[in-house]
Amino acid sequence: MLKYKLNETDLQNALANLSGWTVKEGNLHKEYNFASFGEAMGWMVSVAIYAEKIEHHPTWLNIYNLVRVDLVTHDLGNVISNLDVELAHQMNQLAENKGYRG
Amino acid sequence: MLKYKLNETDLQNALANLSGWTVKEGNLHKEYNFASFGEAMGWMVSVAIYAEKIEHHPTWLNIYNLVRVDLVTHDLGNVISNLDVELAHQMNQLAENKGYRG
Amino acid sequence: MLKYKLNETDLQNALANLSGWTVKEGNLHKEYNFASFGEAMGWMVSVAIYAEKIEHHPTWLNIYNLVRVDLVTHDLGNVISNLDVELAHQMNQLAENKGYRG
Amino acid sequence: MLKYKLNETDLQNALANLSGWTVKEGNLHKEYNFASFGEAMGWMVSVAIYAEKIEHHPTWLNIYNLVRVDLVTHDLGNVISNLDVELAHQMNQLAENKGYRG
Repeated sequence: MLKYKLNETDLQNALANLSGWTVKEGNLHKEYNFASFGEAMGWMVSVAIYAEKIEHHPTWLNIYNLVRVDLVTHDLGNVISNLDVELAHQMNQLAENKGYRG
Repeated sequence: MLKYKLNETDLQNALANLSGWTVKEGNLHKEYNFASFGEAMGWMVSVAIYAEKIEHHPTWLNIYNLVRVDLVTHDLGNVISNLDVELAHQMNQLAENKGYRG
Repeated sequence: MLKYKLNETDLQNALANLSGWTVKEGNLHKEYNFASFGEAMGWMVSVAIYAEKIEHHPTWLNIYNLVRVDLVTHDLGNVISNLDVELAHQMNQLAENKGYRG
Repeated sequence: MLKYKLNETDLQNALANLSGWTVKEGNLHKEYNFASFGEAMGWMVSVAIYAEKIEHHPTWLNIYNLVRVDLVTHDLGNVISNLDVELAHQMNQLAENKGYRG
């Protein structure tokens, strides 16, 4: 997948559509709170399956029902790239939408 | 946790409150469809964490975004028990409710 | 990834190198026994991450520490393909090798 | 499960039997390296199932195939307890032993 650094305008536009995400110490950053440890872990697994598919992985810390995520693109020199935004969108969607269809 | 066979009345009452669950060949049965394979696996993990906690485990088949579940209590002689109902409720809740709090 | 039906010779050669796998009702089949439910689930997650990456998914049944796997390629008309063999190899490796490096 | 602070002697004895674990900033600490991201995530899931069962959860950071773990007992006032040692043992066992039985 094509991978490129976002310029400041594109980054600000991306953030405007990424609920809860900020730039913190050069990373795309968000803290997720789930209803339980089990739901935090289930979400991490669904994100992990997606992350491996796009070959772009998060730095994430779990404490019980909380997951703190930092996204940055190491192989472009620790910049925020389109893949970080892509993964952030997918994380929000997997957290906010029910995956259950019936 | 106390484990006991449900009589027919209690089983019918339980089923009335368990959306999508039926009795099939002596098991409590449901088929879940998720939006993706990743969401099916994430749900299985959150259920697994709960199942191990109550020491009551499902028989479940996964094909892509689908999970077919059968619940029965082997050590009471393959009857449907209160623990099967408990696990079915938790499965529905983990599928239907967003675990995400903010 | 290129996907093709295996001819009988290639299938027999593949099976000779796939410990524990047989052909059963037209599927590549194996039953895995783990030391615990938690280890069965952990293995399923590591396999799932790989399966999604190669876009080839198993049919698998879990009962406590046991996982019964059937592999077949639906979109080639339910034949055994190189991707089934690939996934079977990865499943064995993830079960048999310690992933821990230190 | 009974939960109690370890005195210095008991803590040193415990560490002698916990390969790779040290005390770092008041926490029981270890960094695990796995062969792949998928194996790191699978291990985390098998640990999570155990952690929830004993109602004692890690603080852990994942970056690709690496998992950094800190264990401490918050509700005894951030001391290292028998449950931290218990969880550390289980983490080592799940990382070092093959869970596969055949």
